[in-house]
Amino acid sequence: MPVLVTGAAGFLGRHVVAALRHRGVDVVGLVRHPSTLACPTVVADLRDARAVAAAMTEVRPSTVLHLAWYTHPGTFWHAEENLEALALTCQLAQAATKAGCTRFVGAGTVAEYRWDTPRLAEDSPREPATLYGWTKKAAYEVLSAFLAPHSAFAWMRYGWMFGPGEPSGKLVSSLGAGLLAGRDVPCSTGSVSRDYLYVEDVADATAAVTLSPVVGGINVGSGVGTRVAHLFDQIEQAVGRGRVLRGALPDDHPPELVLDVGRLSNEVGWTPRWSLEAGIQRTIDVLR
Amino acid sequence: MPVLVTGAAGFLGRHVVAALRHRGVDVVGLVRHPSTLACPTVVADLRDARAVAAAMTEVRPSTVLHLAWYTHPGTFWHAEENLEALALTCQLAQAATKAGCTRFVGAGTVAEYRWDTPRLAEDSPREPATLYGWTKKAAYEVLSAFLAPHSAFAWMRYGWMFGPGEPSGKLVSSLGAGLLAGRDVPCSTGSVSRDYLYVEDVADATAAVTLSPVVGGINVGSGVGTRVAHLFDQIEQAVGRGRVLRGALPDDHPPELVLDVGRLSNEVGWTPRWSLEAGIQRTIDVLR
Repeated sequence: MPVLVTGAAGFLGRHVVAALRHRGVDVVGLVRHPSTLACPTVVADLRDARAVAAAMTEVRPSTVLHLAWYTHPGTFWHAEENLEALALTCQLAQAATKAGCTRFVGAGTVAEYRWDTPRLAEDSPREPATLYGWTKKAAYEVLSAFLAPHSAFAWMRYGWMFGPGEPSGKLVSSLGAGLLAGRDVPCSTGSVSRDYLYVEDVADATAAVTLSPVVGGINVGSGVGTRVAHLFDQIEQAVGRGRVLRGALPDDHPPELVLDVGRLSNEVGWTPRWSLEAGIQRTIDVLR
Repeated sequence: MPVLVTGAAGFLGRHVVAALRHRGVDVVGLVRHPSTLACPTVVADLRDARAVAAAMTEVRPSTVLHLAWYTHPGTFWHAEENLEALALTCQLAQAATKAGCTRFVGAGTVAEYRWDTPRLAEDSPREPATLYGWTKKAAYEVLSAFLAPHSAFAWMRYGWMFGPGEPSGKLVSSLGAGLLAGRDVPCSTGSVSRDYLYVEDVADATAAVTLSPVVGGINVGSGVGTRVAHLFDQIEQAVGRGRVLRGALPDDHPPELVLDVGRLSNEVGWTPRWSLEAGIQRTIDVLR
């Protein structure tokens, strides 16, 4: 029985479809509009409960991988669309269990944690600073309770990702595009460290978690802090023109955030394959 | 500008409407079906976003008091309808802020707390054991984040309540009805203590919190533990026939749960007026 993927036409979703197919999985993408994807699709707006139920009946997925959410760069942190995304996530889980789905895997975020310690493990305190973080955390908690009698449930908490196809407005693509246009681009000093992972690795880890029996919250990241200044260097080097105007914008807080990926490496057996440098190079090549 | 009350035709809601009117407040009930209430009403199903928006535009409430939820006795603890209630609560808060509402007051529950300590204060750990508790907790958390820039937000965590009009299937009404019919009614030993408050007091406290400037989570209860065996005695005495078959059913867990009502008494200045005995007597009189 197939894995049904929501958000399959999104930035991460397209890479996840490829990663699942690479592993020989029967994948069906649930998409809002007819889309060209590397897998069969069913068309349903998650707002349309009847269409979602019909899609579930048609596909009869054994596993649902739910990536869809409101992710508009810049605005997603505090947008009220997060409330609707939470509601639609609950509805989807209900429709999935009604259709006999026995594994539900969802997309959480590092923003569910309280950012007062640099190393964030699955059992670290969860106290978000944004509506995005609160609604993701709420989705995790209410689905844990709702799905317990019905289906296995895993919730991946992603760190920072970049790569080909990322929405304009995100760091690597917007900086890369600016430099490629020969512009000097105002940035922070880049002094902070974050857990960055190349999207093809994120997608492969997502496929591995989805196909594993792991349940509960699980961090998906590199487990390593990358200084943003190092990203700047790599992007400048890959592009070969334009300049990063370091210090023109304020730095983020806090100084360091890294995911503890012990569960991902020990229980799922997954480790990254792409170096940061190779990932940046590939992203810039595609942008070019 | 009026206070708009959802769930106004419910068990607690009808008493709250009376309590608000008793305080001279301009109250409008938001009801699913045309209902005979002691206040003006607007009819809108909370599932119908357009009807809710129209109701908000018509009423222009300064304050929304949101009591509606899925509350079917027995099944509400684990029913999936809790997921929809969470979604509709988020939608209502969005509609309220769009209409210029500056205070939103919601109905939470003692079931949001972790029941591993007998005295539950607002800062006690929140770790529910039921889907009802998880969805109420999620509503509190996501609305706290969503409403912060728009409107004052208070969230009342209710203990146990009883009184005239309570749904059949709840302890006092079902036991009272059984005894009034002259039956012997199988019950637990009644060894556990819970924070019971007569519904007219709960309603008056709700009115007081609604009209106060208090924000955040606030416990609404008696602050006193009542042994369920004492309730049995009082009900038997008020009815005067039939018998409570003590020990025929298992006791609940944990042995004792009492709300710390320091905020309610110190910051809102509210204390109970009804004795438990008088409340039971009144409930039985109305049942009779």
